[in-house]
Amino acid sequence: MSEGISLGELAVRFGCTLQGDPGVTVRRVGTLESAAADAVTFLANPKYRRFLASTQAGAVILEPAFAAECRVPALLHKNPYATYARIASVLHPFTSAPAGIHPSAVIDPSAIIDASAAIGPLSVIGARARIGERAVIGPHCIVQQDAVIGTDTRLSASVTLCERVVVGERCLLHPGVVIGADGFGFAPDRGGLVKVPQVGAVRIGNDVEIGANTTIDRGAIEDTVIEDGVKLDNQIQIGHNVRVGEHTVIAACTGISGSTVIGKRCLIGGLVGMAGHISIGDDVVIAGKSAVSNSIDKPGMYSNVLILEEATKWRRNAVRVKQLDDLAKTVKQLSRGADSEKTDADE
Amino acid sequence: MSEGISLGELAVRFGCTLQGDPGVTVRRVGTLESAAADAVTFLANPKYRRFLASTQAGAVILEPAFAAECRVPALLHKNPYATYARIASVLHPFTSAPAGIHPSAVIDPSAIIDASAAIGPLSVIGARARIGERAVIGPHCIVQQDAVIGTDTRLSASVTLCERVVVGERCLLHPGVVIGADGFGFAPDRGGLVKVPQVGAVRIGNDVEIGANTTIDRGAIEDTVIEDGVKLDNQIQIGHNVRVGEHTVIAACTGISGSTVIGKRCLIGGLVGMAGHISIGDDVVIAGKSAVSNSIDKPGMYSNVLILEEATKWRRNAVRVKQLDDLAKTVKQLSRGADSEKTDADE
Amino acid sequence: MSEGISLGELAVRFGCTLQGDPGVTVRRVGTLESAAADAVTFLANPKYRRFLASTQAGAVILEPAFAAECRVPALLHKNPYATYARIASVLHPFTSAPAGIHPSAVIDPSAIIDASAAIGPLSVIGARARIGERAVIGPHCIVQQDAVIGTDTRLSASVTLCERVVVGERCLLHPGVVIGADGFGFAPDRGGLVKVPQVGAVRIGNDVEIGANTTIDRGAIEDTVIEDGVKLDNQIQIGHNVRVGEHTVIAACTGISGSTVIGKRCLIGGLVGMAGHISIGDDVVIAGKSAVSNSIDKPGMYSNVLILEEATKWRRNAVRVKQLDDLAKTVKQLSRGADSEKTDADE
Repeated sequence: MSEGISLGELAVRFGCTLQGDPGVTVRRVGTLESAAADAVTFLANPKYRRFLASTQAGAVILEPAFAAECRVPALLHKNPYATYARIASVLHPFTSAPAGIHPSAVIDPSAIIDASAAIGPLSVIGARARIGERAVIGPHCIVQQDAVIGTDTRLSASVTLCERVVVGERCLLHPGVVIGADGFGFAPDRGGLVKVPQVGAVRIGNDVEIGANTTIDRGAIEDTVIEDGVKLDNQIQIGHNVRVGEHTVIAACTGISGSTVIGKRCLIGGLVGMAGHISIGDDVVIAGKSAVSNSIDKPGMYSNVLILEEATKWRRNAVRVKQLDDLAKTVKQLSRGADSEKTDADE
Repeated sequence: MSEGISLGELAVRFGCTLQGDPGVTVRRVGTLESAAADAVTFLANPKYRRFLASTQAGAVILEPAFAAECRVPALLHKNPYATYARIASVLHPFTSAPAGIHPSAVIDPSAIIDASAAIGPLSVIGARARIGERAVIGPHCIVQQDAVIGTDTRLSASVTLCERVVVGERCLLHPGVVIGADGFGFAPDRGGLVKVPQVGAVRIGNDVEIGANTTIDRGAIEDTVIEDGVKLDNQIQIGHNVRVGEHTVIAACTGISGSTVIGKRCLIGGLVGMAGHISIGDDVVIAGKSAVSNSIDKPGMYSNVLILEEATKWRRNAVRVKQLDDLAKTVKQLSRGADSEKTDADE
Repeated sequence: MSEGISLGELAVRFGCTLQGDPGVTVRRVGTLESAAADAVTFLANPKYRRFLASTQAGAVILEPAFAAECRVPALLHKNPYATYARIASVLHPFTSAPAGIHPSAVIDPSAIIDASAAIGPLSVIGARARIGERAVIGPHCIVQQDAVIGTDTRLSASVTLCERVVVGERCLLHPGVVIGADGFGFAPDRGGLVKVPQVGAVRIGNDVEIGANTTIDRGAIEDTVIEDGVKLDNQIQIGHNVRVGEHTVIAACTGISGSTVIGKRCLIGGLVGMAGHISIGDDVVIAGKSAVSNSIDKPGMYSNVLILEEATKWRRNAVRVKQLDDLAKTVKQLSRGADSEKTDADE
């Protein structure tokens, strides 16, 4: 928690119009519903507008249009949620680890670690790995040989980067992330399977966040690529030679099969499955739980998710789906019959 | 394996009626089909009743109704499966780790560790973390600053608890579990995304079991909450600010999106996806693989899972689903036509 | 990267017919499209045949039928992909760890570790565990008490094997794998749940590969079994007492519920959910994202995956699925009406 910042200072730093006493000090964030007097909160979703009348917050960040409804001090900004995010990161800063290498870490003598970087307890840094300025490698992380970590990138804890993986600047990798394990490739031969060596690597751009227990496989020949600004939630699986375009956001538990290319600024829901070797254009939105079997060229929102039902009713419909082709044929026949009748009648 | 316990003693301790020699001793558990003479087994599913005639087990735990069919000694109880579970935990006790801190563990001097707790090799305990009585922290676990572990709770191995996470009493967390990684929150701004600091924590109640590689994110402002008695299988993802109610059971690979509230005693199948910001009442059962997009008020079983088919047949039906709205309209027209004909005929 | 091997030597070692100069040397692999003159590539998918005319590769491995189209030296073989896999593994060999135990590893004195095995930094080997010849245990692995690792098996990094787990020969386990965590078993009793001790183990055959963050639970009474040659991708969940048959391949994020038996040579797609206590025969193929609720006896390909659509159109169809049983009944009535009319007309 912060020592406290005055609303006056916040207004100046974050380009807000202040409504109320500039001397009021806030020290933390809270929800509109339950923030205390030393907390700042925000209104972004109109659904919560009703709490404006009763909030006890020290200040509310909100759009100018709602200023009149706010009984406590207000920081007015046309993008209240992004402004909240920025103010919250000042009030609740990342507790940076002190520079230096914990004595319990196991460091290969050929690794190149910037003096400003922090290497946590029981981490393992392999041969020729390079760790950039102010990078933070948390406890129990593994950075294998020839891997590269950019400036200001943080590996939270228990992150495993395999050999030759490259991570850009200002990235954040959460616990349990595995980057650069072998892609899944086997050649059938005489009833068995021959392993296809996975000799590519993984390249992660700048400002990428990767959620807990997410896995990104190394390429078969060339590299798997995650472009700048991509945000991956927890437990996502990215197959070998996938490319995820700039600023694309993928929700938890989604799996992208090998060699698929996803465009820029896409929003992919959770538990989506994407086939391999397909191509998704820019600005595509996929509803959570969808199955994507084919390429998509056109921006827009896509889905194939059914509506949940009480199970007894559902079963009756599910059985009908199995009969749907027959049903459609019957309707076609009836339709023809009706048309011919109509034609008969018309004649 | 146990030194052996007599059926007489088991009957007394677990409130069973004994049919057979109280002096028979069992030392382990087995299946009805293949248990040896020193093993105890059970009959809960009537499907396996046919093995009663041939079982070689030392004893069978079963309902009084089946006693007559059992040729070997029997421990009669109206809930044979729960009785089996209790007897099995006596015959195969958890091999408790000796109290004390392994010399290879890295412990912050400000951590408060009960003298009866066991801290395994290469574990990392952060500043001000508190470890309760008889708690067992296995090898390679990380308990970050200000986290709290309750009495008799066990972290099996390679578990990561992030800062300020609170775990109650008698919990069991399996390898690869990550609790308290950042929730997935970003505010769109000028074509990019601003990270929203995740300042809440995670609170886990008592008697909670959490399966391997399951992840539970910390709250955005307030806490993510798992109530008492909840059982989570492997590879489940729980988003920020979710609340899972008492004694709810969730099967593997299910994902719950942020801010969703699940009631008490629910049974959620595997690979279910649940949307965010919805509410599921008490005693709701969701079939495995379902997608849950909306709130559910009423207890009952719900599904939207289709029936698997041979692929060639299936494709014909899948194409028809894409034409279903048109088909329904055609049927409506035909139906109107038929009605008007009927009306004509009636006139 | 290799020191280089002549095409003449490759042709002899891998049974290829050489077309071109046997003295040409290759040192690495590349893609048909972008391989350099010191790289060998392959043509397996006819889709890429057009690159044959322009490839700069040192040599192309391909079927004799395409030999005439290849402008650079060619290694002719009827199975070019498997041949590529074998040649690639010679050009890019696994960098074997030197035998011996890293000083930072924590080894129980009763563990039996072959002198030719390599135990990486910060690994933990439990009581009576046995590590076979030339086995490689990477950094941060845990091999708990009484676990067994066969000859030439490699645990990449951060792999956790729980007590009594047995892994065969020549297996490869990727980072984050957890084998032998408790199966998910609870007996309902008086409104609560009693944990059922999971006293079985996990047995993994020979030549098995297991992807990053995959979890395989230990059996409830008897063992969970993965047979020889099985290939499991990342983030797969295998429940207790499952048996996966020889040479079966399962893609990422799939979940197999407890006690299900899968046959030999099956191909299971990604994000498939399989119910418990069912049986899948040999040579069954399941499309990715399918839900498998019942046993399958007959070889063949199966699916229940819908076609993705633009969301507005999709919603209209999804609503109709909820009305499908009613729709089918209406069609049946219409059909009867039409038949009776027809009958009337016929009379």
